[in-house]
Amino acid sequence: MEKILRINLNTRKIQYEKTDQEMLFFWGRGLIAALLMKEVKPTCEPLGRHNRLIFSRGPLAGTPVPCSGRLSVGGKSPLTGGIKEANAGGNLGHCLGKLGIKAVIVEDKVPNDELYVLFINKDGANLEKVPELRGLSTGETVKELQQRYGEKISAAVIGRGGEMGLAAAGVAVTDMEARPSRFAGRGGLGAVMGSKGLKAVVVDDTGVQMPKPVDKDAFKEANRKLVKILQEHPQTSEVYTEYSTAAALAVVNALGALPTRNFKQGSFEQADNINGDTLHDLILDRGGAGQVSHACMPGCIIRCSNVFPAKDGSELVAPLEYETLGLMGSNLGIGNLDDIALINAKCNDLGLDTIETGATLGLFMEAGIIPFGDVQGVLNLLDEVEKGSVMGRVVGSGALIAGKVLGLSRIPVVKGQAMAAYDPRGIKGNGVTYATSPMGADHTAGNTLRAKVNHLEPRTQAKISETNQVNMAGVDNLGQCMMVVPALGGSFQIFIELLNAFYGWRLDSDFVSKMGRQVIKFEREFNRLAGLTEADDKLPEFVYEEPLEPHNSVFDVQEEDIRGILRF
Amino acid sequence: MEKILRINLNTRKIQYEKTDQEMLFFWGRGLIAALLMKEVKPTCEPLGRHNRLIFSRGPLAGTPVPCSGRLSVGGKSPLTGGIKEANAGGNLGHCLGKLGIKAVIVEDKVPNDELYVLFINKDGANLEKVPELRGLSTGETVKELQQRYGEKISAAVIGRGGEMGLAAAGVAVTDMEARPSRFAGRGGLGAVMGSKGLKAVVVDDTGVQMPKPVDKDAFKEANRKLVKILQEHPQTSEVYTEYSTAAALAVVNALGALPTRNFKQGSFEQADNINGDTLHDLILDRGGAGQVSHACMPGCIIRCSNVFPAKDGSELVAPLEYETLGLMGSNLGIGNLDDIALINAKCNDLGLDTIETGATLGLFMEAGIIPFGDVQGVLNLLDEVEKGSVMGRVVGSGALIAGKVLGLSRIPVVKGQAMAAYDPRGIKGNGVTYATSPMGADHTAGNTLRAKVNHLEPRTQAKISETNQVNMAGVDNLGQCMMVVPALGGSFQIFIELLNAFYGWRLDSDFVSKMGRQVIKFEREFNRLAGLTEADDKLPEFVYEEPLEPHNSVFDVQEEDIRGILRF
Repeated sequence: MEKILRINLNTRKIQYEKTDQEMLFFWGRGLIAALLMKEVKPTCEPLGRHNRLIFSRGPLAGTPVPCSGRLSVGGKSPLTGGIKEANAGGNLGHCLGKLGIKAVIVEDKVPNDELYVLFINKDGANLEKVPELRGLSTGETVKELQQRYGEKISAAVIGRGGEMGLAAAGVAVTDMEARPSRFAGRGGLGAVMGSKGLKAVVVDDTGVQMPKPVDKDAFKEANRKLVKILQEHPQTSEVYTEYSTAAALAVVNALGALPTRNFKQGSFEQADNINGDTLHDLILDRGGAGQVSHACMPGCIIRCSNVFPAKDGSELVAPLEYETLGLMGSNLGIGNLDDIALINAKCNDLGLDTIETGATLGLFMEAGIIPFGDVQGVLNLLDEVEKGSVMGRVVGSGALIAGKVLGLSRIPVVKGQAMAAYDPRGIKGNGVTYATSPMGADHTAGNTLRAKVNHLEPRTQAKISETNQVNMAGVDNLGQCMMVVPALGGSFQIFIELLNAFYGWRLDSDFVSKMGRQVIKFEREFNRLAGLTEADDKLPEFVYEEPLEPHNSVFDVQEEDIRGILRF
Repeated sequence: MEKILRINLNTRKIQYEKTDQEMLFFWGRGLIAALLMKEVKPTCEPLGRHNRLIFSRGPLAGTPVPCSGRLSVGGKSPLTGGIKEANAGGNLGHCLGKLGIKAVIVEDKVPNDELYVLFINKDGANLEKVPELRGLSTGETVKELQQRYGEKISAAVIGRGGEMGLAAAGVAVTDMEARPSRFAGRGGLGAVMGSKGLKAVVVDDTGVQMPKPVDKDAFKEANRKLVKILQEHPQTSEVYTEYSTAAALAVVNALGALPTRNFKQGSFEQADNINGDTLHDLILDRGGAGQVSHACMPGCIIRCSNVFPAKDGSELVAPLEYETLGLMGSNLGIGNLDDIALINAKCNDLGLDTIETGATLGLFMEAGIIPFGDVQGVLNLLDEVEKGSVMGRVVGSGALIAGKVLGLSRIPVVKGQAMAAYDPRGIKGNGVTYATSPMGADHTAGNTLRAKVNHLEPRTQAKISETNQVNMAGVDNLGQCMMVVPALGGSFQIFIELLNAFYGWRLDSDFVSKMGRQVIKFEREFNRLAGLTEADDKLPEFVYEEPLEPHNSVFDVQEEDIRGILRF
């Protein structure tokens, strides 16, 4: 039933394949891990012709199950040199689900710097040469694609950053209003897409039916149950809905883990100006296009996204999220939502990951190229990216390269990728996740922020990180949004019911964590073959040695605890 | 007798230590390997406080034995992330030998960006703060040091590149006329020195006696024998002496292995303009300061160095060597000796490795920032290094980082370090050495150019490379110049005689290769612990896939042959 769409950018050959039986339970992040292990030589150059870019989605994409349409994008990462999966909301995952496409595998690269769009609809797929899209922003690209393919398309596109092969470039996915603002941001997968000569994947699901469950009644019942769970938990019915992911800012600031001025401080004196409450009130106050709550994909009832309006009520950026507020706000010493929103919008246009780029700009500030808090300086540096100058290319090359170029020793990266907006000295479980996740320093790989523990206590963190990493890999294997997790109380039984009803499977209740372990096992094996070792499972030296105010804490989880986890 | 001088740049503590008995036979590169294994955590950050910079020399330094005074500089490399030793001629190695100092170990780093000189003489050692030397070129630095410490000093210094922490920065050692032009160039050890806040190591050996042999007569006899060997072999008595290392250019060009235009071609249409013959004749023709033959250290009878004069007879650069002619000549499409000499001189001033910088400039040309052959463009880019601009910092950060920043896929590096001036598709044995040496793509780690084999034949190369790597590690452990090797006919018996006579040891005839194996074993173990694996023992993808004219050869030595060597 489900098929793989395989395209080769060198030969422009397009083919549909049946999925292997052994891949039956692998989806999203898991399918990417399984396919990369099977098809890609782990030592290949990330931006060379032997790397593959894979789009995949969960088993319930295309159904009405809430939050089931995450789009996973994967390949070997130019930042980490290891395996990478980044997933995004938006509507493309659901569209692939409706079309019965389990994954799109992009092979090889175009000769002679050509640029293509892959267009998929009910009749099939084809590649179209689009030199006229070169250099366009993500937003302009989608507008052009709508002109060509109609208003109702979904798309995954790259901006100038991806075209230029910049390692901070992500893949932008359209939301329900065709904003290309849902980012599979991390790991430089936009550069991989650019290296292949692929500007966009466009899907039109017109005329396609929703997939049908095997046991319709049981499926309906299970789905009702999930909706109820999400509606009854305050985190998914109120906190995220009203205050979006920005709700985390006050919490992390209070914990002393908010990256501030290139991870020099753990709390920001202007945190109140950029926290969830302020954001919420400002959006309501300004009205216009503003929305405190917004769904990025069909069927989402959490609606953790938002639309941030300018003073005149016109839309400035959507969404404005916690990680961006941390890395492009406090981390840059910028304490004003309008400024952060403007920088965020510009990064979106260029198709750059705001986490990686925020960390990089923090290094430009630490090096004294521009001072902390210099909004115009940041905008100028992003202009340089757009111009394609060498300076701009450094800005877009990620924190590790920028830090080395600038001659700095405090570079906040793990496995070559910038740390997300949780200083590991203040939330030590996230330090373990950063150090050990096959993904590098991702907040989505096993965030321990919500664990009910003392985040400064070193001894308990490794196990908590491991549990969360396994669960997240399992959830990512389902194409489910991580935002549902807080409401589930640690049980994934509801997904077992949904899957069994939909597919007629007989999955056990440990399916999610079992798959999570298998996915991580594949990923670690890919990384091992790619040349990553225990020596890469470590944080930057300064977090072990430089006490972080306000707690004057260093990262002191024992090395043996860190090495003891994820050994499946 | 022999002592270790240990200095800590953070505490400014200076102490002399006895050498361990277990280190008795480790010198130069070998002592660096043994000390780094013992004292440095392999996962430390290369430019952080836990890395150590080590200067060491051979067991016969300070004696009249020809070519015995190489200075080894070592530490964890910011380019390769592994162990690094780079050695240079000049007179500092001999001075340390006379002073009975086996090694200088530099620990930690200065607080607050201070800058120091380490001064050593017969009375001891001390650190002196030298803010006034900041930003000075290598040449200016030595002139200032002579003002301060007298004309007769020897010194190892860094230029602006090392101060800025640029990964292409080397350590420049003075020759007999106090030119800081003998480079321990590779691996970015100048950046390590800069990161510690050390601008120079200065030695004044005034009033110090030459060390005395245990068996004076036997030592004299053995030394006479070595001199005779060197005088009787055409390579060491004529070729190197008359044509310097530049003699290799015509040979490598004829073999189709001369890096040309960022390793796109294997021979250069203007090779005749920059080969050894042309260089020799031009030097003689111009006269003035020019010398076709020049000794970089006391007692050298090979004198492979030269002094290249400008048109008016004034000195332009000394020496002008093969690797520079390859990487900054043909590799940049520059076919004029004056131009190459000018670029070389400027790199020396900045303290940048000409190999790494030449490869990097080739990438700037490939990216179209400047065209191939654009001498003024190159000089402008080097001006940017001097200014410390972001552009200049990219130029000085080495080929891997520059290539990534510029979005290129053809990056001629192995383990993060630029390939020397032998394309591995034309001299495949050097490809094996590049891939497997713990040092990365070094021409000094086991050059197979002079092996009497078909360099395009893939099956024989791995073993030849292994033998040469072991021999070179053994020779580097003796602080001997590699230039003596061609005259020895594969036997190192003469060094056994010298060492036994000098120290009263009873070394076996396999001592050199036995130590060579042990040194490589240490180095590989350090690298393994630092996180390097078999996955790093590979060449850039393009050399496996892009046929190189004129032979249309690719690098096709089998992976199992490559993996089979150096397994001691």
